[in-house]
Amino acid sequence: MALIVQKYGGTSMGNTSRIKNVAARVKRWHDHGHQVVVVVSAMSGETNRLIGLAREISNDPDPREYDQMVATGEQVSIALLAMTLKDLGVDAKSMTGRQVAIKTDETHTKARIEHIDADNIKKELAEGKVIIVAGFQGVNKNNDLTTLGRGGSDTTGVAIAAAIGADECQIYTDVDGVYTTDPRVTSKAKKLGKITFEEMLEMASLGSKVLQIRSVEFAGKYKVPLRVLSSFDEGTDGAFDEEFKQNVGTLITVDEGDDMERAVISGIAFNRDEAKIALLGVPDRPGIASAILSPIGAANIEVDMIIQNIAENGVTDFSFTVPRGDFDKAIKILEEKVKDDIGATQIVGDDKVVKVSIVGVGMRSHAGVASKMFETLASENINLQMISTSEIKVSVLIQEQHLEKAVKSLHTAFGLDREDGESKVAGL
Amino acid sequence: MALIVQKYGGTSMGNTSRIKNVAARVKRWHDHGHQVVVVVSAMSGETNRLIGLAREISNDPDPREYDQMVATGEQVSIALLAMTLKDLGVDAKSMTGRQVAIKTDETHTKARIEHIDADNIKKELAEGKVIIVAGFQGVNKNNDLTTLGRGGSDTTGVAIAAAIGADECQIYTDVDGVYTTDPRVTSKAKKLGKITFEEMLEMASLGSKVLQIRSVEFAGKYKVPLRVLSSFDEGTDGAFDEEFKQNVGTLITVDEGDDMERAVISGIAFNRDEAKIALLGVPDRPGIASAILSPIGAANIEVDMIIQNIAENGVTDFSFTVPRGDFDKAIKILEEKVKDDIGATQIVGDDKVVKVSIVGVGMRSHAGVASKMFETLASENINLQMISTSEIKVSVLIQEQHLEKAVKSLHTAFGLDREDGESKVAGL
Repeated sequence: MALIVQKYGGTSMGNTSRIKNVAARVKRWHDHGHQVVVVVSAMSGETNRLIGLAREISNDPDPREYDQMVATGEQVSIALLAMTLKDLGVDAKSMTGRQVAIKTDETHTKARIEHIDADNIKKELAEGKVIIVAGFQGVNKNNDLTTLGRGGSDTTGVAIAAAIGADECQIYTDVDGVYTTDPRVTSKAKKLGKITFEEMLEMASLGSKVLQIRSVEFAGKYKVPLRVLSSFDEGTDGAFDEEFKQNVGTLITVDEGDDMERAVISGIAFNRDEAKIALLGVPDRPGIASAILSPIGAANIEVDMIIQNIAENGVTDFSFTVPRGDFDKAIKILEEKVKDDIGATQIVGDDKVVKVSIVGVGMRSHAGVASKMFETLASENINLQMISTSEIKVSVLIQEQHLEKAVKSLHTAFGLDREDGESKVAGL
Repeated sequence: MALIVQKYGGTSMGNTSRIKNVAARVKRWHDHGHQVVVVVSAMSGETNRLIGLAREISNDPDPREYDQMVATGEQVSIALLAMTLKDLGVDAKSMTGRQVAIKTDETHTKARIEHIDADNIKKELAEGKVIIVAGFQGVNKNNDLTTLGRGGSDTTGVAIAAAIGADECQIYTDVDGVYTTDPRVTSKAKKLGKITFEEMLEMASLGSKVLQIRSVEFAGKYKVPLRVLSSFDEGTDGAFDEEFKQNVGTLITVDEGDDMERAVISGIAFNRDEAKIALLGVPDRPGIASAILSPIGAANIEVDMIIQNIAENGVTDFSFTVPRGDFDKAIKILEEKVKDDIGATQIVGDDKVVKVSIVGVGMRSHAGVASKMFETLASENINLQMISTSEIKVSVLIQEQHLEKAVKSLHTAFGLDREDGESKVAGL
């Protein structure tokens, strides 16, 4: 008998017939004798409908009232799922963030969870109930409703799993796990059975949008085993046995140092939303980096890679990447506010670039991983425009036209290709 | 400076442009220095949308979960109205039933308010805020959300007005007041300036569906002056002066014994939803009435008028009326379960009947009011099938085809006709 938290997103809760599917699965787990807490998002489209109403009223809706409004989406979902389970004869009870007592800070629209009262949930579980919790929401010390921001339901799931000491937090999505790379780019991509929290963080932030980054950080911090699996897969019967644990979805967990180390690289991530900007002939003196990036940050533009070359003759080149949508705005800021101030000779840019990364905890203990990446790309005649590295990843910026070739060649070079032909991924 | 509670229904809150109209009016009252608490319903259509979702899941949705779900409709409304007021520069704050602390009993879907914490609201009002309260909902002692049933927002408005000692509870509707009768039946109907709680109760229960009966009972019990007025009338500027008090809408208040007594009859009410059933040749012995009506009540059929004639030769006739939708069911119950048991000779029925009533506190001190009614109807050749009376009303059951003629003739006979031609009623 296990204590399981299951999280279902807006697509899984998209209409009443899908809600019935979710209820049927929850019932199977409950029937197997497991204690189950279910965290759900609003029905898909509902949050956007509510935001649309607020926009009709104001360009900048009051954040407290905005939260008071959008939190209703999840409240409808939990009630509908609990009703469905009750109709199936399962003793279920819905709880809003307030009823659980999910205490957050006072930051509306992107609050952070500070404390969860585990006793409320545990008491109900002990009575044999299935508890359905509204994701994405909490209550602050002023008795106001707060929301955690987009994707916050994943965070709610992980936080509750941590608070009640669950055996596993299962995130049901429209894909059946985390892949070595995007199967739309290479059909040889394969599903990973396990991945570490750190690898998942790098994969997620690099564009594999299966999980919200904050929920992975949270799970890593509290060591909550996190499983990504498909809500459309009806193959499991609710048994939390070895076969399930080995084969279903992808388990994101701590680096146990055993089979994890066998694969040097776990996956190839990439991000198309990159544009490169370089300031040439920049005087090499203290304060230059902040003189360049402060006005960019002040305009709410997120900077990703940052590279500064070694200075020659007292001048250097300074490059960074921004999301493509902010490319023109960033160039304009640099031309108007920065270039002359710091005495740069020229600003150049390119918004037809992409970032490709290899990710894996195994590279910590393996020299030559970066070299192998660069050789592989060189043999494909792909020029590297920028390089950046962390302990468990190497990223390169290349021309957009080479993306597919780069991912495929790296996928093969690092031994990630499936041996049994083509990949088929639910939901893709 | 006055303390005013304003209640807006689903039609007034029907879309964001109407919500802006509501906000503009609330702002005018606030600008005049009044303390304003606003109670709102869900946007029209929203509650039905939610009920539709529940019906897709279950024919008999769990009542706790049903309340958890439908209460979100009002939560969206309060947030949208508070946002709008904030955008107009008014310091507004929305509060759910739970945040106010509207405590109810544990009856889901038709809970009764037990206590309202007035201090929460008063504290915020003292800070100059406009408070927007979700109608129709509360919280019970198990920390579960409850709803008050259809029309419960009126009750919320009155209960809050009573709790905080408001000068007036204003119910904004799609009509501009209470009329002497339905203006669709006679164009000579005129708006009443004042009416007593008791008269309003008789008018409401007889078919003038301007206000929910429970809210009128509540207002009468706690002596909260209740004003019905139009949410589409932009004529008032927010001044709570004599002109407003005399001319706008209809004030429902206690019988002050002054100008109220001038009109013997305040209005002519009618109800089309009546069907008559009579048991003939019933033995006149104790227990007969309950033998007939108990099985009807057990089938959840509401009985309205009940008449028993004086016995002749040990037998009597027993007649009553039920809603038309329950006519066939009631006849069947009597045929199968009652007729032979009590030894009635025959059951007859008619579902083409209507009830017409004259209502007025003035009839308490005026003899001959009933006679005048019967004479008037006789002179129009209208036959009376049943008669029932209370202290402030006389009701007759007549054939449906005579309804309009009966109402018009009574309206004229009791001096209720407008002198200045035709009535024009907002929203009708």
